[in-house]
Amino acid sequence: MAEQTTEQTQAVPPAVVLLSGGLDSTTTLAIARSEGFAAYALSFRYGQTHEVELNAARRVAAALGVERHVILNIDLRTFGGSALTSEELAIPKDRDVEGIGHDDIPVTYVPARNTIFLSFALAWAEILEASDIFIGVNVQDSSGYPDCRPTFIQAFQAMAQIATRAGTLGQELRIHTPLIDLTKAEIIAKGTELGVDYGLTLSCYDPSPEGLACGHCDACLLRLKGFAEFGMADPAGYDSPARAR
Amino acid sequence: MAEQTTEQTQAVPPAVVLLSGGLDSTTTLAIARSEGFAAYALSFRYGQTHEVELNAARRVAAALGVERHVILNIDLRTFGGSALTSEELAIPKDRDVEGIGHDDIPVTYVPARNTIFLSFALAWAEILEASDIFIGVNVQDSSGYPDCRPTFIQAFQAMAQIATRAGTLGQELRIHTPLIDLTKAEIIAKGTELGVDYGLTLSCYDPSPEGLACGHCDACLLRLKGFAEFGMADPAGYDSPARAR
Repeated sequence: MAEQTTEQTQAVPPAVVLLSGGLDSTTTLAIARSEGFAAYALSFRYGQTHEVELNAARRVAAALGVERHVILNIDLRTFGGSALTSEELAIPKDRDVEGIGHDDIPVTYVPARNTIFLSFALAWAEILEASDIFIGVNVQDSSGYPDCRPTFIQAFQAMAQIATRAGTLGQELRIHTPLIDLTKAEIIAKGTELGVDYGLTLSCYDPSPEGLACGHCDACLLRLKGFAEFGMADPAGYDSPARAR
Repeated sequence: MAEQTTEQTQAVPPAVVLLSGGLDSTTTLAIARSEGFAAYALSFRYGQTHEVELNAARRVAAALGVERHVILNIDLRTFGGSALTSEELAIPKDRDVEGIGHDDIPVTYVPARNTIFLSFALAWAEILEASDIFIGVNVQDSSGYPDCRPTFIQAFQAMAQIATRAGTLGQELRIHTPLIDLTKAEIIAKGTELGVDYGLTLSCYDPSPEGLACGHCDACLLRLKGFAEFGMADPAGYDSPARAR
């Protein structure tokens, strides 16, 4: 029986990797590849203002080597309720970077976004017969966004384990969060070690139509601080970079 | 403090109700309305062969009275893997109705479908500040579809409770499954008691372009058996009804 199991094991196991094309998800994809997974990258067109974020995801998927890159359309604007999916709510700019992730849940929070993203990843994983899903949530966002917290990921994994045909047949389902305890500087260090070109990535909540980062939103401020702490200039293009504080 | 809480309580609490326009979800909507909820009906265009299923959902939403009916586009065909979302897999016909729900998971299973549907319901519930979500899963399907089982619903609720801003602020999140232990005949009895016109509904996996049920798929066979046990003719239109066994 043990021999049969070995025979059935795929030489290169497939994994679904959630990929926005930002710093965190790109590093997560590089980690999944370095751990020997065949990566199936999943991105979403969910009502962001600009298509340039998806262009970053396409660049990253091509550069890091994925088996397939799927971009799903899900229109979260139908419900409203977040600055990232609404034209009526303004994206906060130039906040105190030390406060980001430590104060109230920001207006850029998209209700149940990671729950929805992980649910689609679960569907694809089941079809691929994959036991592994990667998501680049990390501690820097965790107190701000409820669905970035370790307890949430654990609860999702417990639910996912019994949600699918594979799970009911005893196949294990693992949600990998390799960045969850890392600072932005540590994430950049890890990705740089793995050869990631962060010039391909885009983390900004409010990029220019040409794909330049604004340099002032929470995502830009955290990213610039991370690069400063790591001691490297951010290779991404900025419209007018804020001074990393 | 108790008085403040009372003041903040909405007179008519909102609830998100997943609505396909079939027998189960229609009865569930009627139950939610009878329990005093303002219903926000949520349907999905997810790659079914026919738009007629959504027409049934529209008819039901109008007849039963909802605050709003949202139909979301989510293209599960991108991933493939189910007879309900693929033109390459055939929908089984004229199976032994006693075996349905007791044998292997059928090809009509859509991977992670209820996980995805409930995730969107959770997002809308958070925006509506609703604590209640209704889904018409029931025991007749439960051994066939893993994501219809009580253990799955419990695990989803546990996850949902910590996935949202509302949850982190202590608001309870309840997934209601009023049909979970009922037979189809009991569901029909409950709906009839509440005044549901089942002639508006459509349960078929393979309806005609005019919206007539096929009478031969698992969903039709279970439904016809339910009406026969309840002792009433199914008022829905059939292309060529199978004899209820």
